[in-house]
Amino acid sequence: MQDLSLAAARAFDAQDPLREFRDRFELPAGRVYLDGNSLGALPKTVLPRLIEVVEQEWGRDLISSWNRHDWINSPCAVGGKVARLIGADADEVIVADSTSVNLFRLVVAALELAGSRRIVVSESGNFPTDLYVCEGATRLFGKGAALRAVERDQVLDAIDSSTALLLLTHVHYKSGELYPMKDLTAAAHARGALVAWDLSHSAGAVAIDLNGANADFAVGCGYKYLNGGPGAPSFLYVARRHQDRLLNPISGWLGHRAPFDFVDDYAPADGMRRFLSGTPSILANTALDAAVDTLLEAGVEQIAEKAQRLTEFFIELIESRCRGLGLTLASPRQSDRRGSHVSYAHPNGYEVMQALIDASVIGDFRAPDIMRFGFAPLYTRFEDVWLAVDALHSVLLSQRWREPRFAERAAVT
Amino acid sequence: MQDLSLAAARAFDAQDPLREFRDRFELPAGRVYLDGNSLGALPKTVLPRLIEVVEQEWGRDLISSWNRHDWINSPCAVGGKVARLIGADADEVIVADSTSVNLFRLVVAALELAGSRRIVVSESGNFPTDLYVCEGATRLFGKGAALRAVERDQVLDAIDSSTALLLLTHVHYKSGELYPMKDLTAAAHARGALVAWDLSHSAGAVAIDLNGANADFAVGCGYKYLNGGPGAPSFLYVARRHQDRLLNPISGWLGHRAPFDFVDDYAPADGMRRFLSGTPSILANTALDAAVDTLLEAGVEQIAEKAQRLTEFFIELIESRCRGLGLTLASPRQSDRRGSHVSYAHPNGYEVMQALIDASVIGDFRAPDIMRFGFAPLYTRFEDVWLAVDALHSVLLSQRWREPRFAERAAVT
Repeated sequence: MQDLSLAAARAFDAQDPLREFRDRFELPAGRVYLDGNSLGALPKTVLPRLIEVVEQEWGRDLISSWNRHDWINSPCAVGGKVARLIGADADEVIVADSTSVNLFRLVVAALELAGSRRIVVSESGNFPTDLYVCEGATRLFGKGAALRAVERDQVLDAIDSSTALLLLTHVHYKSGELYPMKDLTAAAHARGALVAWDLSHSAGAVAIDLNGANADFAVGCGYKYLNGGPGAPSFLYVARRHQDRLLNPISGWLGHRAPFDFVDDYAPADGMRRFLSGTPSILANTALDAAVDTLLEAGVEQIAEKAQRLTEFFIELIESRCRGLGLTLASPRQSDRRGSHVSYAHPNGYEVMQALIDASVIGDFRAPDIMRFGFAPLYTRFEDVWLAVDALHSVLLSQRWREPRFAERAAVT
Repeated sequence: MQDLSLAAARAFDAQDPLREFRDRFELPAGRVYLDGNSLGALPKTVLPRLIEVVEQEWGRDLISSWNRHDWINSPCAVGGKVARLIGADADEVIVADSTSVNLFRLVVAALELAGSRRIVVSESGNFPTDLYVCEGATRLFGKGAALRAVERDQVLDAIDSSTALLLLTHVHYKSGELYPMKDLTAAAHARGALVAWDLSHSAGAVAIDLNGANADFAVGCGYKYLNGGPGAPSFLYVARRHQDRLLNPISGWLGHRAPFDFVDDYAPADGMRRFLSGTPSILANTALDAAVDTLLEAGVEQIAEKAQRLTEFFIELIESRCRGLGLTLASPRQSDRRGSHVSYAHPNGYEVMQALIDASVIGDFRAPDIMRFGFAPLYTRFEDVWLAVDALHSVLLSQRWREPRFAERAAVT
């Protein structure tokens, strides 16, 4: 057990090799923001870059910017940067569309690649869009394709000769539990299945080595730990060995071999470019680009190491200060088995979280009873962790969460 | 024949009821921008709105903005504004994703609705993404579904008892020719086909009445005459009578009936919300929202009327000044049969357009020999039309386009 005092927290911050990065973000004064796993904070470089793109590139250079400012390569250029965060090569990643749209692409493409294997295995309780998109994509694909969602500890056993694809979320959105990517990929490959990883809750926070794990496909979210802004573009990874054997089911013009020839028949581009469909949002890509630059500067190994230390400090503080106050750890206790968020169950988790937010500590709630606390290594301090637990302790001990206003439900939780 | 002098052009501008709207846009000094049909100019309201959303909503209010600033309803709220430009009701339109992704959604949904009818009829030479997406969507749908692209004057005759959907672009991206929406929709309905309109080259420039035409579906582009910025979100219209009978093939979580219940099984939301998939880009939606506000203020009827007058003035000027210089009109001569851009063929159209751009008149080129000139009624003046023809006349007469530098090809044309 380490020293759990506020002074100790401050000492950890003083020695933190990433301590200077907090100043690269706009953070609201007087609040502890522990929801960067849901919407990352605003990097200070984003707005100046956006203003430049809007004023100079769109406003002044107008249509010529597709060439002059290389807008046309923006999905590949930003993708190439994201690649460095996830253990991929630059020509294996694009940013485009939403995670749901990219999941749809890869599920259909994987079913086509897998021949007579038609079952997609995933985890029940996976992030909903993964399951929903599989339902829709397999239904449309037909020919017996279907989703088989099983309990977490059954996913390997569920793979048989009918399995086309194993689709898993690397870090679980509720529990924060981390799958051992390399071992599971190898085991699924040994059973003849392709493997796709949803990195939405891990990219930018934990160590990821897609190529080292020999993964087939991956997708992920741009607006969580990548800090690309609300609804930022998603990224899509396809291992180089598969790229030219797959077709994008949403065969739009920007994925064409020669989009500016304007011919009637579709012919896919080589490499990742074939997974593009429509014209990319340059504003959205610009924000994500600036945000990813900041992550790359910090370095993914230091980020991952700090994530483990922050979550460990949080759990130890809760164990020390909140015992007997109704919290049950809903995340792995071992730091190398979890991502960068920690969840606690509480029978009145919704109300407790609202009271905590009222006390200026921002986490979130996931039905039915989970309070999530996300730690973004670039801007979360050990002091923030200490202050958050102090506030949580106060809310629980005082039972302030029983005030009726904390039971009111908002549209988005 | 009207007065074709520069003085006359200036007099038209002085009497133009939309004359004040030009000042609502950032326009590059000393250039005539006639490519707003490809990338609309920057409305002055966009950057202040973006800065507010980035600094205040993302930066300060962070995750709470999904409720506090109603980000969650942004696809429907902005869609409801676009509806007023296209003759639809507010609850019949969303903005989301790209035109290609929305085309994919509607082609698949239409095939499912159409039962045993499995053929999508479209026009050969339609905008490529329409054809490409139909190829991909019908291939994936299987069961004999296919695209049948026929010559423009054959589209009605091509509809038979196997036709599920007639997919047409309202204003042709090259020729600017306008389909009579109401008559064609009625004729296709009489033959038992559903009808989808791609409004990419008409929305924000010509009069559109989807409900008056009894159209079934429509999509369109946010970055042309809507001025939403490079790669702005697309819009999708589904007539209310069809909404609850259709499924979104890309069944992502935001189209779920209760996305924040995080349950495992997909159940579509009522109405247009079911056509959402992933989390919307709030930055991209913000820019489009501000841009559409400007169009609504100007009023769609005045815009459409000015579009006809601008294109007519352009054609008359070319007829008067550029006769014998190798130009062939590739757009309808009758103003009520065209949209808001005019195309001319020239054997060296690429080089002529580059020389014209060098002379500060910005149009674009479409293979093999088409020069396109787009007239955005909110910011194109009659004087601009006059100056453009004057420069074109000079380039052609001087044969300046023969300079070798004008033959160099850029990545994007």
